[in-house]
Amino acid sequence: MKIIHTVQELRAWRKTAGKVAFVPTMGNLHEGHLALVREAAKRADNIVVSIFVNRLQFGQGEDFDRYPRTLQQDADKLAGEGVAVIFAPDEKELYPHTEQRFNIEPPHLQNELCGKFRPGHFRGVATVVAKLFNIVCPDVACFGKKDYQQLAIIKGLVEDLNFPIEIVPVDTGRADDGLALSSRNQYLNEQERAEAPQLYQVLQSVATRLSDGNTDYVALEQNAAAELNARGWTVDYVEIRRAEDLAVARSGDKALVILAAARLGRTRLIDNLEVVL
Amino acid sequence: MKIIHTVQELRAWRKTAGKVAFVPTMGNLHEGHLALVREAAKRADNIVVSIFVNRLQFGQGEDFDRYPRTLQQDADKLAGEGVAVIFAPDEKELYPHTEQRFNIEPPHLQNELCGKFRPGHFRGVATVVAKLFNIVCPDVACFGKKDYQQLAIIKGLVEDLNFPIEIVPVDTGRADDGLALSSRNQYLNEQERAEAPQLYQVLQSVATRLSDGNTDYVALEQNAAAELNARGWTVDYVEIRRAEDLAVARSGDKALVILAAARLGRTRLIDNLEVVL
Repeated sequence: MKIIHTVQELRAWRKTAGKVAFVPTMGNLHEGHLALVREAAKRADNIVVSIFVNRLQFGQGEDFDRYPRTLQQDADKLAGEGVAVIFAPDEKELYPHTEQRFNIEPPHLQNELCGKFRPGHFRGVATVVAKLFNIVCPDVACFGKKDYQQLAIIKGLVEDLNFPIEIVPVDTGRADDGLALSSRNQYLNEQERAEAPQLYQVLQSVATRLSDGNTDYVALEQNAAAELNARGWTVDYVEIRRAEDLAVARSGDKALVILAAARLGRTRLIDNLEVVL
Repeated sequence: MKIIHTVQELRAWRKTAGKVAFVPTMGNLHEGHLALVREAAKRADNIVVSIFVNRLQFGQGEDFDRYPRTLQQDADKLAGEGVAVIFAPDEKELYPHTEQRFNIEPPHLQNELCGKFRPGHFRGVATVVAKLFNIVCPDVACFGKKDYQQLAIIKGLVEDLNFPIEIVPVDTGRADDGLALSSRNQYLNEQERAEAPQLYQVLQSVATRLSDGNTDYVALEQNAAAELNARGWTVDYVEIRRAEDLAVARSGDKALVILAAARLGRTRLIDNLEVVL
């Protein structure tokens, strides 16, 4: 396994690499990331994992500075997974100018759901992913369903800008108590960690009601948010959307996804659950 | 020479094509385009010429509907030039959705010079070029200096989004009387065609004054515009910029370019001239 820090060296390696599967990450890897890597391994001989904490996708007051950087531990975790290359550029390598001049501008979905609370986040995600796609030139790229809106944005990006890349969605990894794996879970104190599975439990309860034939999406969303708020969460949103493209769900839609974002103390957690009626 | 209309067929061809040089065009080819093709031929065995009149880069009231579509004549002109593939998708092939959802947002330069008079034009250019780059996956792409601002935008796009493509600038083709070759020249009536070389003559006269040591850029620009206006043109701009990145020129800059856009009757012409002091 090579650790490559520069675009030039990555390109040189890529020339002879054959089929490549790509897993872009911000590092601080956990079992959820390793599940992405294992999916990648099914699809290509060569796996590239990028580790880059992308300033562009953090808003003011967000956790860019304290986001955990743990390259050595990440490399140790990837060592047994058949990864060919860790691509770990520094900021100057990906953003050599003081600002990124050309950006990918996603459609209105970027301002909905998480985008409403994180202005510019999905523009930053789409832009860095486009850059990484052009650097790594993968045949396949794996993205987790944990970041469901991000996955929808990336699928749209690839389709609309004709990137010759197959996007593979990977199921969310969860702790035994149901909490979705996330680097941000480590911000939780002991009590918060014990309460954190409530987010997934509420999603499951909405899913049950949908499966039972309840079609009053607005009431379901409001009740779920009220339940979380009552338990001490600060809810950004609970929304029922169409799974395919995250359009607002309408009665008659069969493939849905319930998405939620809420803060427990200072830590913002997101989760989602697909429901097929 | 194959004429390919679909992305799928182009990708299938590309898989075994080796090194590819790419010339994106809107068709209605003239000697200026053929010069691009000949530059491309020096750089790769396989040349792809795309022909696509890109609605995204035309503003309201511009000539999208009347822009000449001449695929058969274009193919005849390319037949002797060693072109491997003409890629001529229809609109539905490149824009399958009612709107392009993900766009490339260029920096402020997109709103200067021609961009001031053609809002959204360079966003549309950058977006379609990104799409075509991802479809054709060329090693090299040739762009004419006639569209100097477009060339600067494309160079920035490639650098900022890390497209693995070498951009080759190609000198402007000119008629014997100096008029820059352009598909829009055919909109000119006989009298306008006789007057059209005045645009280049004015640029040459500014270049002479710059070479003579005149550094009052604003006065040079204003005088040049006044001269064209006096001759019956409607001037959009005459500007002296830094050649490298089209930043506003400052005294001491050595590599400059004088750019102009002006209308003769209903036809808008652009031209430019590089000056090295």
